[in-house]
Amino acid sequence: MTVSFKGKSPSRRAFLKGAATAAGALATAGAARAAGDPLITEVQPWASGFGDGVDETPYGLPIKFESDVVRRNVEWLTADTISSINFTPIHALDGTITPQGCAFERHHSGAIELAKEDYRLMINGLVDRELIFTYADLERFPRVNQVNFLECAANTGMEWAGAQLNGAQFTHGMIHNMEYSGVSLRTILEEAGLTKAGDLKDKWIYVEGADASSNGRSIPMEKALDDCILAFKANGEALRKEHGYPVRLVVPGWEGNMWIKWIRRIEVTDAPVESREETSKYTDTLADGTSRKWTWVMDAKSVVTSPSPQSPITHGKGPLVITGLAWSGNGAIKRVDVSRDGGKTWAEARLAAPGQKMALTRFYLDIDWDGSEMLLQSRAMDETGYVQPTKTQLRAVRGLNSIYHNNCIQTWWVKESGEAENVEVS
Amino acid sequence: MTVSFKGKSPSRRAFLKGAATAAGALATAGAARAAGDPLITEVQPWASGFGDGVDETPYGLPIKFESDVVRRNVEWLTADTISSINFTPIHALDGTITPQGCAFERHHSGAIELAKEDYRLMINGLVDRELIFTYADLERFPRVNQVNFLECAANTGMEWAGAQLNGAQFTHGMIHNMEYSGVSLRTILEEAGLTKAGDLKDKWIYVEGADASSNGRSIPMEKALDDCILAFKANGEALRKEHGYPVRLVVPGWEGNMWIKWIRRIEVTDAPVESREETSKYTDTLADGTSRKWTWVMDAKSVVTSPSPQSPITHGKGPLVITGLAWSGNGAIKRVDVSRDGGKTWAEARLAAPGQKMALTRFYLDIDWDGSEMLLQSRAMDETGYVQPTKTQLRAVRGLNSIYHNNCIQTWWVKESGEAENVEVS
Repeated sequence: MTVSFKGKSPSRRAFLKGAATAAGALATAGAARAAGDPLITEVQPWASGFGDGVDETPYGLPIKFESDVVRRNVEWLTADTISSINFTPIHALDGTITPQGCAFERHHSGAIELAKEDYRLMINGLVDRELIFTYADLERFPRVNQVNFLECAANTGMEWAGAQLNGAQFTHGMIHNMEYSGVSLRTILEEAGLTKAGDLKDKWIYVEGADASSNGRSIPMEKALDDCILAFKANGEALRKEHGYPVRLVVPGWEGNMWIKWIRRIEVTDAPVESREETSKYTDTLADGTSRKWTWVMDAKSVVTSPSPQSPITHGKGPLVITGLAWSGNGAIKRVDVSRDGGKTWAEARLAAPGQKMALTRFYLDIDWDGSEMLLQSRAMDETGYVQPTKTQLRAVRGLNSIYHNNCIQTWWVKESGEAENVEVS
Repeated sequence: MTVSFKGKSPSRRAFLKGAATAAGALATAGAARAAGDPLITEVQPWASGFGDGVDETPYGLPIKFESDVVRRNVEWLTADTISSINFTPIHALDGTITPQGCAFERHHSGAIELAKEDYRLMINGLVDRELIFTYADLERFPRVNQVNFLECAANTGMEWAGAQLNGAQFTHGMIHNMEYSGVSLRTILEEAGLTKAGDLKDKWIYVEGADASSNGRSIPMEKALDDCILAFKANGEALRKEHGYPVRLVVPGWEGNMWIKWIRRIEVTDAPVESREETSKYTDTLADGTSRKWTWVMDAKSVVTSPSPQSPITHGKGPLVITGLAWSGNGAIKRVDVSRDGGKTWAEARLAAPGQKMALTRFYLDIDWDGSEMLLQSRAMDETGYVQPTKTQLRAVRGLNSIYHNNCIQTWWVKESGEAENVEVS
């Protein structure tokens, strides 16, 4: 087994600040620690005065000590920030819900500001009645709630050619997971009427956004009528500007580029439009120069979020929580395994809750770390029986020309110091 | 049936601004609407220029159009804002998750700022080993994830004497619902060892916070070992300052006052401490002047969040989404009914997802509103068979002296204009 790292550094802004605190030994006897600890023996200022009142924060923000837990972009990745990506700080989060405030963004012509009064949604093409809805109209249809992950097709895309980016935020942070509330796309299509469309098996919809890029994509009617939502809210509150306020499309399990933000038009068509976003972009070029056609589903994938390059072990050997995220665009995660030796041996991780369809699953493996180096990997399995492949397996099928849909097993080299690096094992 | 409203107005700041948009008729034919609608016929500025880049919002905030969707306090309710309450804007939210930024706060001596490095948790009393944990120590124990509602015992408390506050945010907004990640309290108690405590059936823990109020409460050992968590994260990210950063106690289904923020000490005891917070405060005085002892559980309850006084109907008659929240401290919600005639007749609402134990459940009832006035109510039933009582039923048992644990059915008088008022029916 060889270990190689040929990483470019992310932007200066992206470097992790040092871990906040030197960890004490676990289960230190209280008396011994207390004697020398002014935090125990003395009255603290926060225990002898008043804190902030309830009028201080009409809308609350993260505490200042967490100012590192933010989205970060990688400055050299794109020429301009209006057509770029920033990344969710997954190395610093736990659980499964991603707060909107730190959920990654991808824009093609910047995040626009569109008031509800100015919002219109047109349905046209092969429908019985072409319709235009205001936001207030949409609110009058029956609503649904769903927790779904959104993963950018390009997530982990830099890793095809080797270990590139040093941190789970940068390798796997083009993902978020929210509870959406809105109207089923099926409801709106049925409102427009699909009789005229005839046999729905070979029909499509073409969806586009109100931003300058319009970012149009074709979606087969079968998926459109299955589980897509026109979402108003994410995690209970209005979508934020950067996530498509006031209405975005949710396409569970399919690549994020199809989740049209600021959605303005749905056209029922008898063929895919073959737009820029699904031909010259968002396709994978294979070794022979051809492209795979229709790569919508995000296959089963997982990553260890801690320990990881941005979340090193600071407490030395002994009890250690290994944790990460797993997901599949084909259904629920059934099992996650963790390897500490680069894939030679595996241990089954504990899922924090049973996997839900097209939603993030949190896994944990609680170990007693002996202080020796680890080649840490995770491997997801979904309800279809699909197993997350190694990078070698993926390259054998797809070559090295791809950008999108890299769902291979990720390796972190955790050193004796507790620091970690993005590496490849072979 | 009589209708009465003797409401005090909330503070000026609390008044709802007018609904943002005049709603169009549902399913208006596109051609007709498009002809006169410059939002359809003209190129819009947001479709012909660039929006914000991905470096604009390292941590994203709600869009400016949603600036009304914030926590609000009621100025006359308490003498000082450092020992007061603000309310979740539940009238404007959907789904079940409450973002931390708009999740209600209750402080007894203000929200303190406590860095992870300065955090200590002591376990003492009838334990085998008295221990002191740093934050970094706690992170090394196996973690759990749980979605739970927190309801203040005083939620809806002003309503005992009649319809007082005009809006779901003020009558029912002392509630929030988050996904918590942290260490099971059982794990930490077992780390300290409970052999010395002997028979655990009659043992207790006493928990207190690091703020000046300390807000100490006694919890029976059975509950402490059941489902409580020492939580680090809420909805994936660190607790915010006002929610107890860096560690708070989660006590599923039990009154919010017991969910100690900035938790600093857990003492195992052989009896309840009978602290201020569980004797002179947070008890209910009955009609005969005696108090109910131990009123921990928040019984099944529900409220229609829209339409409601702060969320009037603005679109006239026709399709209308009635929605609200239901919860129970005794387990999962099994069913919610909605009445449009003040409780004479009921229709079963649709649950957005099957109820989960001690977590908010979203319900919907989709109706064709004929434009006549409604006395809108909701009634929750939980898995124990318990049915949410009317105010009359609750008063018959508890009298009028109570402040806490008012879980009665709420009535909104929705007028022909679509505006709504908090009223009592009898």
